[in-house]
Amino acid sequence: MSHPKHADTSHDILDVIRERWSPRAFDPARDVPTGDLKRVFEAARWAPSSFNEQPWRFVVAARTRAATAFASLLETLDTFNREWAQHAPVLALVAARLTISRTGRPNQTAWYDAGQAVGFLTLQATSVGLAIRQMEGFDRAGAVRVCEIPPEFEPVVAMAIGYAGEPDLLDSDKHRAAERRPRLRQPISDFVFNGRWGDPF
Amino acid sequence: MSHPKHADTSHDILDVIRERWSPRAFDPARDVPTGDLKRVFEAARWAPSSFNEQPWRFVVAARTRAATAFASLLETLDTFNREWAQHAPVLALVAARLTISRTGRPNQTAWYDAGQAVGFLTLQATSVGLAIRQMEGFDRAGAVRVCEIPPEFEPVVAMAIGYAGEPDLLDSDKHRAAERRPRLRQPISDFVFNGRWGDPF
Repeated sequence: MSHPKHADTSHDILDVIRERWSPRAFDPARDVPTGDLKRVFEAARWAPSSFNEQPWRFVVAARTRAATAFASLLETLDTFNREWAQHAPVLALVAARLTISRTGRPNQTAWYDAGQAVGFLTLQATSVGLAIRQMEGFDRAGAVRVCEIPPEFEPVVAMAIGYAGEPDLLDSDKHRAAERRPRLRQPISDFVFNGRWGDPF
Repeated sequence: MSHPKHADTSHDILDVIRERWSPRAFDPARDVPTGDLKRVFEAARWAPSSFNEQPWRFVVAARTRAATAFASLLETLDTFNREWAQHAPVLALVAARLTISRTGRPNQTAWYDAGQAVGFLTLQATSVGLAIRQMEGFDRAGAVRVCEIPPEFEPVVAMAIGYAGEPDLLDSDKHRAAERRPRLRQPISDFVFNGRWGDPF
């Protein structure tokens, strides 16, 4: 039987895309090998970016190998994220360089390019059995401080990385239910247009 | 022998990530089947986004099936992109909704989330033999006009989609040379930090 989180697709897509999802429950007993994390970030490395600027940066804190950094980063998360993210084996902060290194001018695609890099690393994570949940709910000024982010960079999202665990590991009824609910998306006809806005592809 | 554009990786990654690259030369004789384009956009559909907002939209113009839209979109590209992109079989505009549908408040991760969706669709494209080159160099006001983009949305990037062709198809010496040059990236140690900024992972 298919996993409830595997996408109910209208067109055939790569397994890593179909099977990727964002858990809150992480197996507390499984640590993530550094070698697998390196593969995950190697995937981000090869993402495209405007003028090959590669504006993405990652500050990674594994609970067992960088306990102080993990605790500090956890502290920056909003309460509703901290509740479940405290049990993930790895937390990371994604940052983006807002200026183009060569010219110092604003890089309007910095966040967009960081998104592509995280897209790549998320699919690589799926392929090695890992799962990632990204979080927008965190204290940005706090993250700048604890991760020592230089002024030309900006925090983008935080993320938890680990192996998906049983929904019953979660304290919140709402979170447990979300963990078992199928993933829902708008149909292609709502977001892909043929030639001009609104004409379904 | 390996293709010169296949990534020289330090850690093992998915073939679709290793082999993806952004050509300027597209095979002018090969049209892209609509079914394959649907698989590409289906991949975007399943990307994660903040609060599942799915802020990404795509206006697609296949040269043979939406000739007027193709010509109009081509016209919005900067000259240095128009030169090669005119031979691609498909052009598309990526747009993002800047507000959260449910609340009307600004969505700070709109561009970032659009980037992830394009990351997913790009890898799906690679898996069906397609290649994509994204372009930041285009007339944004022009794109709003020709694609009839509503005010709550913003153009993000344009892209060319097709089958990579021979470098000699390109007019520019510089572009032909770029097509044969290996892809270069900063090492992981330059962008992934352990616990705090600057400490290599």
